[in-house]
Amino acid sequence: MTTPFSFKLLANDGDSRLGEITTPRGIIRTPAFMPVGTAATVKAVFVDNVKATGADVILGNTYHLMLRPGAERIARLGGLHRFMLWAGPILTDSGGYQVMSLSQLRTVSERGVSFRSHIDGALHELTPERSIEIQNLLGADIQMQFDECTPYPATRDDTERSMQLSLRWAERSLTAFHEHGKPGRALFGIVQGGVYPELRAQSAEALTSMSFNGYSVGGLAVGEGQKLMFETLSSTTPLLPPNKPRYLMGVGTPADIVGAVERGIDMFDCVMPTRSGRHGQAFTWAGKLNMRNAAHIEDPRPLDEASACPAARDYSRAYIHHLIRAGEYLAPMILSWANIAFYQELMAAIRLSIREGNFAALAARVREAYPSTTVAEEAGAVEPGA
Amino acid sequence: MTTPFSFKLLANDGDSRLGEITTPRGIIRTPAFMPVGTAATVKAVFVDNVKATGADVILGNTYHLMLRPGAERIARLGGLHRFMLWAGPILTDSGGYQVMSLSQLRTVSERGVSFRSHIDGALHELTPERSIEIQNLLGADIQMQFDECTPYPATRDDTERSMQLSLRWAERSLTAFHEHGKPGRALFGIVQGGVYPELRAQSAEALTSMSFNGYSVGGLAVGEGQKLMFETLSSTTPLLPPNKPRYLMGVGTPADIVGAVERGIDMFDCVMPTRSGRHGQAFTWAGKLNMRNAAHIEDPRPLDEASACPAARDYSRAYIHHLIRAGEYLAPMILSWANIAFYQELMAAIRLSIREGNFAALAARVREAYPSTTVAEEAGAVEPGA
Repeated sequence: MTTPFSFKLLANDGDSRLGEITTPRGIIRTPAFMPVGTAATVKAVFVDNVKATGADVILGNTYHLMLRPGAERIARLGGLHRFMLWAGPILTDSGGYQVMSLSQLRTVSERGVSFRSHIDGALHELTPERSIEIQNLLGADIQMQFDECTPYPATRDDTERSMQLSLRWAERSLTAFHEHGKPGRALFGIVQGGVYPELRAQSAEALTSMSFNGYSVGGLAVGEGQKLMFETLSSTTPLLPPNKPRYLMGVGTPADIVGAVERGIDMFDCVMPTRSGRHGQAFTWAGKLNMRNAAHIEDPRPLDEASACPAARDYSRAYIHHLIRAGEYLAPMILSWANIAFYQELMAAIRLSIREGNFAALAARVREAYPSTTVAEEAGAVEPGA
Repeated sequence: MTTPFSFKLLANDGDSRLGEITTPRGIIRTPAFMPVGTAATVKAVFVDNVKATGADVILGNTYHLMLRPGAERIARLGGLHRFMLWAGPILTDSGGYQVMSLSQLRTVSERGVSFRSHIDGALHELTPERSIEIQNLLGADIQMQFDECTPYPATRDDTERSMQLSLRWAERSLTAFHEHGKPGRALFGIVQGGVYPELRAQSAEALTSMSFNGYSVGGLAVGEGQKLMFETLSSTTPLLPPNKPRYLMGVGTPADIVGAVERGIDMFDCVMPTRSGRHGQAFTWAGKLNMRNAAHIEDPRPLDEASACPAARDYSRAYIHHLIRAGEYLAPMILSWANIAFYQELMAAIRLSIREGNFAALAARVREAYPSTTVAEEAGAVEPGA
């Protein structure tokens, strides 16, 4: 018999939650950070090394995978887990966000979104039904309803219209999930409503009346800033059922994460650790280091001698600096791996602190090391397809 | 007490030699292939994975390392082994070859070579004395005399003049090595003389009268073609002392290697496995595969299910093809690793076949899978700094 999808709340510290999601492919300890495996690879990191950092779950992108190599192809090859050799749970997004940010000539209608591929210009369509079908072809353990990610800024009217469309797509996603889904797989609804608390409330109320296995908070970290993001979370998470996991999509910096955990969020994903790694930046408990900086040129210390991750523990800063200067592949390989490890260490520390009832002290320590910018403000140069 | 450098001949099969080089940092089983770690990294491969493929020794490039990060800097950081976390033996070239192929505005004199860095145009000088000093600052276990790599084609007169200069530099290199070298470190002389057997003989005779620990054959695989290379080897290796290792520099394809082993060569280095890996090519026992080719798009087979290397054994060809198409870092990471592993498997098979007296059968198998082109003919696009 397949293990059913379930969520267990193990401890609280204020509004922070320690929990455990059970899936047929393994347990996800929450609060959890999911490394992003956009095109069936966590960029520049071997999947065994991702696992060894302590990641329980990774994320795959429906938009990227449907375009290349194609969902049906991945299904014929045995599914995404087998394709990329990741045995644990995989969460997929619905494609809704990236179709809006990456594709060309898109047209949104009640039915869904028509668009041209950013790769070859070919015409494609994503609807709630097709998104769920694709996520099931990939074999995703945790799937997202198809939604429209409302841009920021947006007027109240536009935000409401968009949020209502996402609600109708939520129902159609659920219906499709009941058709395509397999035992043990989960579908999350996505709360939209921009930065308008009453719209968020309407969205949350409607979604929680449907039978989703968990709830995502979407449409944040899109330029609104950390303060507005936190305010929106503060008014939204109390409206979500305590017995289901809550996922803040696309977030974020270490400071974003502790702030969101403080407001009752259980799951996160972000390209930041790997993208920053490719840009020469290292996350450490003492803050973010720009390894390109000449200050590191003869520094024999590792990024973190106390880390369990070889990438953070073994190589000198001088060596990493040299590899960046020389344009060597090993630089992004080491930094992406070390950054994924740092994020997992951060989550482990968060989980421990909630269990021990001293999350506030940890959060203060993280805020001291990390400036309170959001992922959008931090992102800098955006690479194609990343 | 430091283990002295030594070479032991264990078996012969025709002119092929099975042997063992002992260095203070470990044993090198010969015939040996040395992965190239140009800028203190075997491009796109973690050093632990290089080791796990069975490589006993790697190569570092004096020219690249003197320019960036600098030999004195590496020495202050504890030497090249510590810098790149490779605990086994390291062989360095003298810089002579790359100063001619990569640098700008070079001037060759009796004293040495003045040149401008290809990185920043800064003026540098390499002399026999400085080359040996750098190789010792790096901490190289096996060092090369400073030489002039005679280009191909070259007239007999030019080749003779160049070979004689290299002989005078050989004496100066030996003197400098006695000053800078440490116990257990080795210095190899380099036989030059182009494709002129009598010049090769003069060079070999003069060098073998000096107290080198081994002999390199230089100035081959520079465009002369496999046939001329093999003819030159056939006339040269019999002139080298049987009790010292013989290293054919910069070679080669699998077919080059078996042909050279057949002619008594013990050591090889080449960028081919890693460079080909970055270009989407995979070495297998069935020949070289272009993984970019659409034929692989839905092939669930690994590169080699019998390989001990996870990169060759675990990922499907379809996945590797996808990674190349998507421009993912993981493609060169997997292919470079798998190719290094293939080259080490090839060397292990060569060693076993010599021990068992059936090298000819193995050589025939390799020639069938690999066209008899040389590395220079195969190289294709050359990347900067590679």
